[in-house]
Amino acid sequence: MDAGLINELRDQYGIVFNDIALLDEAFTHSSYKNEHKELALKDNERLEFLGDAVLELTVSEYLYKKYPQLPEGKLTRLRAAIVQTKSFSSFSKEAHFDQYIRLGKGEEQAGARKRLTLLEDLFEAFNGALYLDQGKDAVVRFITQVIFPKIDAGDFSYALDHKTNLQEYLQRNGEVAIEYHVLSENGPDTAHRFKVDVEADGKVLGTGTGKNKKAAEQMAAAEALASLGADDTLLPQD
Amino acid sequence: MDAGLINELRDQYGIVFNDIALLDEAFTHSSYKNEHKELALKDNERLEFLGDAVLELTVSEYLYKKYPQLPEGKLTRLRAAIVQTKSFSSFSKEAHFDQYIRLGKGEEQAGARKRLTLLEDLFEAFNGALYLDQGKDAVVRFITQVIFPKIDAGDFSYALDHKTNLQEYLQRNGEVAIEYHVLSENGPDTAHRFKVDVEADGKVLGTGTGKNKKAAEQMAAAEALASLGADDTLLPQD
Repeated sequence: MDAGLINELRDQYGIVFNDIALLDEAFTHSSYKNEHKELALKDNERLEFLGDAVLELTVSEYLYKKYPQLPEGKLTRLRAAIVQTKSFSSFSKEAHFDQYIRLGKGEEQAGARKRLTLLEDLFEAFNGALYLDQGKDAVVRFITQVIFPKIDAGDFSYALDHKTNLQEYLQRNGEVAIEYHVLSENGPDTAHRFKVDVEADGKVLGTGTGKNKKAAEQMAAAEALASLGADDTLLPQD
Repeated sequence: MDAGLINELRDQYGIVFNDIALLDEAFTHSSYKNEHKELALKDNERLEFLGDAVLELTVSEYLYKKYPQLPEGKLTRLRAAIVQTKSFSSFSKEAHFDQYIRLGKGEEQAGARKRLTLLEDLFEAFNGALYLDQGKDAVVRFITQVIFPKIDAGDFSYALDHKTNLQEYLQRNGEVAIEYHVLSENGPDTAHRFKVDVEADGKVLGTGTGKNKKAAEQMAAAEALASLGADDTLLPQD
């Protein structure tokens, strides 16, 4: 196993594997296994199967406890926005997992190292390996660093469509003019943040921040619904 | 909460809830909540959201460990056969959960108590409640009584399509006559069992049992593949 990965896991996430073979397995793509039959390696597909379920529960339990007022339909939409290729592949890349996956030559040349589904599978396989090596609490600790802060920051709240909910709530007795305004936009390219507010008939009801305008608007709508006492919010309940 | 349910959980499964409110919640359908707004009840939908993920992991981990030789594609097919409405609703009924769900009058008259999706949701909600009340090990103990014996008995092995695999394996060098024969069929209606064998060019390669002919044939094909040393089996590896 690449010493770089071992060091990075330890330094960045405080993770040290007991069974290094599990880590090897998680970072072995089937194309590498097939090119090195003499080594009788295991690829990461079975770990991916397990890790998929581990992550589903870890994320579900977090959402269930963090948002006690959120109804099932919204929990499900929020979970679906988190537990998906686009999200998992970006977590995988942020953790630099793409640098360490062992690929066959053909797949390497075909650009598989940047393929979103490969990165998603790798993220799942890593969490499957961590679960087998150290149990669910270790996965929760890792995900607390990698995913939960993004949920809290509202990166997935677009899935709840608070904007539609706010509109329906405000217009339940007739037309109301609803406007969103960008208040500020700053931060480096990699951590760009928008701040917006939402006004109804000229009165500010809420503000929100997010990595893009859409996410910030959803958070502002959620805050507005909360301030109005409407039963729909992704704001932390604690 | 119905004393019958509390007694049955204790006597049949050794389960005693610490927080009886969670059990109440699991057995409260939204239609009942809506008809009794003055009681400010919670329905079981959020628990269903959590329980769904708890069961997904519990079943995945069991399959992963029980069948170390099974590739990811087959693990996924097997899991899908277990984690589905038809299966979960039948587990729910076997545990008599349908007798205890609190339904609104309209839904009761509409026959909701026998509705498969309602029974599935109830099974998930119960396991979500058990998980919150006593942790994953308690869910594993329950599922070890309710689901795992059925997996071991081959009730879901049809999903693996061993028959196709056996045919492809045997005919890799040309035509081979493959025949399945029912050897016996017995047991009461509720626990009917078939026994079959599979022959290739007149030689018996394996036998299997199952709740129907199809399941028994799949198990026979799996046994045949194992006896041939082919890499495809749902037979326990321990």
